[in-house]
Amino acid sequence: MTDAEALIETMGRDARDAATRLAATPTAVKAGALRAAAAAMRDRQGAILAANATDMANGAANGLSPAMLDRLRLDPARVEGVAAALEAVAALPDPVGEIIKAWTQPNGLRFERVRVPLGVVGIVYESRPNVTADAGALCLMAGNACILRGGSEAIESSRAIHAALLDGLRAAGLPETAIQLVPTPDRAAVGAMLGAAGLIDIIIPRGGKSLVARVQAEARVPVLAHLDGINHVYIDKAADPAKARAIAVNAKLRRTGVCGAMETLLIDRAAPERVAKDVVAALLDGGCELRVTPELLPFDARLLAADAEDWDTEYLDAVLSVARVDGVDGAMAHIARHGSHHTDAIVTEDAATAETFLAGVDSAIVLHNASTQFADGGEFGFGAEIGISTGRLHARGPVALEGLTTYKTLVRGSGQVRPG
Amino acid sequence: MTDAEALIETMGRDARDAATRLAATPTAVKAGALRAAAAAMRDRQGAILAANATDMANGAANGLSPAMLDRLRLDPARVEGVAAALEAVAALPDPVGEIIKAWTQPNGLRFERVRVPLGVVGIVYESRPNVTADAGALCLMAGNACILRGGSEAIESSRAIHAALLDGLRAAGLPETAIQLVPTPDRAAVGAMLGAAGLIDIIIPRGGKSLVARVQAEARVPVLAHLDGINHVYIDKAADPAKARAIAVNAKLRRTGVCGAMETLLIDRAAPERVAKDVVAALLDGGCELRVTPELLPFDARLLAADAEDWDTEYLDAVLSVARVDGVDGAMAHIARHGSHHTDAIVTEDAATAETFLAGVDSAIVLHNASTQFADGGEFGFGAEIGISTGRLHARGPVALEGLTTYKTLVRGSGQVRPG
Repeated sequence: MTDAEALIETMGRDARDAATRLAATPTAVKAGALRAAAAAMRDRQGAILAANATDMANGAANGLSPAMLDRLRLDPARVEGVAAALEAVAALPDPVGEIIKAWTQPNGLRFERVRVPLGVVGIVYESRPNVTADAGALCLMAGNACILRGGSEAIESSRAIHAALLDGLRAAGLPETAIQLVPTPDRAAVGAMLGAAGLIDIIIPRGGKSLVARVQAEARVPVLAHLDGINHVYIDKAADPAKARAIAVNAKLRRTGVCGAMETLLIDRAAPERVAKDVVAALLDGGCELRVTPELLPFDARLLAADAEDWDTEYLDAVLSVARVDGVDGAMAHIARHGSHHTDAIVTEDAATAETFLAGVDSAIVLHNASTQFADGGEFGFGAEIGISTGRLHARGPVALEGLTTYKTLVRGSGQVRPG
Repeated sequence: MTDAEALIETMGRDARDAATRLAATPTAVKAGALRAAAAAMRDRQGAILAANATDMANGAANGLSPAMLDRLRLDPARVEGVAAALEAVAALPDPVGEIIKAWTQPNGLRFERVRVPLGVVGIVYESRPNVTADAGALCLMAGNACILRGGSEAIESSRAIHAALLDGLRAAGLPETAIQLVPTPDRAAVGAMLGAAGLIDIIIPRGGKSLVARVQAEARVPVLAHLDGINHVYIDKAADPAKARAIAVNAKLRRTGVCGAMETLLIDRAAPERVAKDVVAALLDGGCELRVTPELLPFDARLLAADAEDWDTEYLDAVLSVARVDGVDGAMAHIARHGSHHTDAIVTEDAATAETFLAGVDSAIVLHNASTQFADGGEFGFGAEIGISTGRLHARGPVALEGLTTYKTLVRGSGQVRPG
């Protein structure tokens, strides 16, 4: 056993003990811990910003990109945002104890499927220090213990934020092992977490594609994640032109770096040419680079020819591939071949065509006449989000408190024994 | 890529294509295929029994144990049982398309979480040829394609039963690739299935502990299974004596080889001695060997002293370990330490104590005043069972059609775009 494996084994056992406690902890106590942690976060603002300044200085010295430095950076407003997020999670309905289903069998046995915490959650993340608080809070509220392994570039900030979470746990009389931070950010700890089957019940990676890919490839523990968001908007011949333009522009350009951003636009060959031209012009005018099939090239001198790779590329940037397709069947065939089962949308006024698309597209989220950028736990009304899953097991789409639970079946009898 | 990997890749791709078809197949067509398969099973009874006779002869020559030969053996009644089971699955409610939850957000977006098939299911099993039909039928009814890999000792029987399933698929106009049987029973195919992440969505092992252990250790694909059923019955001081005796005897002795059988009996130290003696006597008189803690030894000359290993042993036989514990807290502590999160029961007339146990025991199934042998999909009212899961993700406890599904979220709008 390596040092990292021994460390994770110890943390895992402590987490399991804490999880047993948390499973029986009333909602008010969990929420109280989070509110106390929010207060501690505000009290500790100076220390948190000082720790973050150290990370920022190290990051600049180590040549982090401006984008990474921006993700790493905290300021008073961002610290307040983290504290407010803790309070928002504290206000969410507690999923634990919910009776999902109840039924009685003819022999009088009464069955109840009741929601219980998953157990021990591992979170592996990169440079965003707020994940320490966000993920810790969601795990706690769902009654889970968690093991957080933040990126080395944010380690001082994560430690300072973690200290506030520990204040909250202590104030509520909960074990500090309910939210553990891996003390040293070496990569071996990640490997040990990924191999910790039986100690960690689920791993959630939060970060870029290379992190998610590594976690998915190496993990012996179940993983809840999405690797790609190659999301499509299909503009049907029966689309309302204004909705088509607005949805396409929003799906691509509201934020280009989020996993719910559109990456390929599909336009029905039977759609009026003015509708197609209008959408293309709006995207170009919005600053988007468009890589298109040959038949679209004459529309505008700014258009570029797409190559085969474009249909399988998640740009996460102001770049979009555009193809014409033969109706909803052509759109569904394209999505089946190139999609990543994340989020896809149709724009049409034809209800039957919409239902064909909603039923036929095998993605976690399928929208009709709405932007793909609604692929978000907050927009779903979940109040928060720990990630989006494109896996088919357990939870699919945005995951919040409910996705961090499982269930057990209670059976109440009056002395029944099984015949036969 | 090995030959086995190439084979499973081809089968997996064919299965995915079939799964796409099945996801859109109406209930009546799926049910029709199963009823036609049942009819074919009856028509082919002679061929099935002849194939089984070959397996039995090979098995006897290869020195299979009497128990294995009995599991392998088919006769006209068992073939009829398999056919009737296909018809029973055909009559179950189709889970696909069920609206699990529906809600509307303030911006007018209407959300619907709808149940859809999992996709491609891999079943790895041993000598029971009926699993070919049972598992194939459940997968099909839930809209999934499946890849079946039966044991070498039952290969001729499995092929003959599979031929009847193919008759059913053809009669319903469904692709034969909806239910595929790995043609050769070499072990390399199992390894290839366990590594087929992306091709197979979930693996369900059906068989003995060594099979399940291998699958859990090697699989890169999610596994739905239980390894152990170290199940407890706790007799509380407030237990009704008659219920205690009946439940203990049924939980252990109705069938000793099933995963829901009790393996450890816990008796409250505060329970009246006559109650404890009565239960112990009933079990001994029923032919059970009892391995007990020292304080119980004087009860009866037939009692044996338990050693430390007994508390962690799944006997699957007429053998039971018995301990006295200090009340419900002592029982829960024992179960937390030695249990396998499968099925545990309390016998008590004290409602508060019962609720403490139901809430505090972290097992898939927790019963009050009922036998652990109710741990079965049929007894839960599911109409069938493809296995029992003690994993914490996706499905827990008996798994039938619903556990073979996932969901997607449909979002219906009127042109909404996301602000900000």
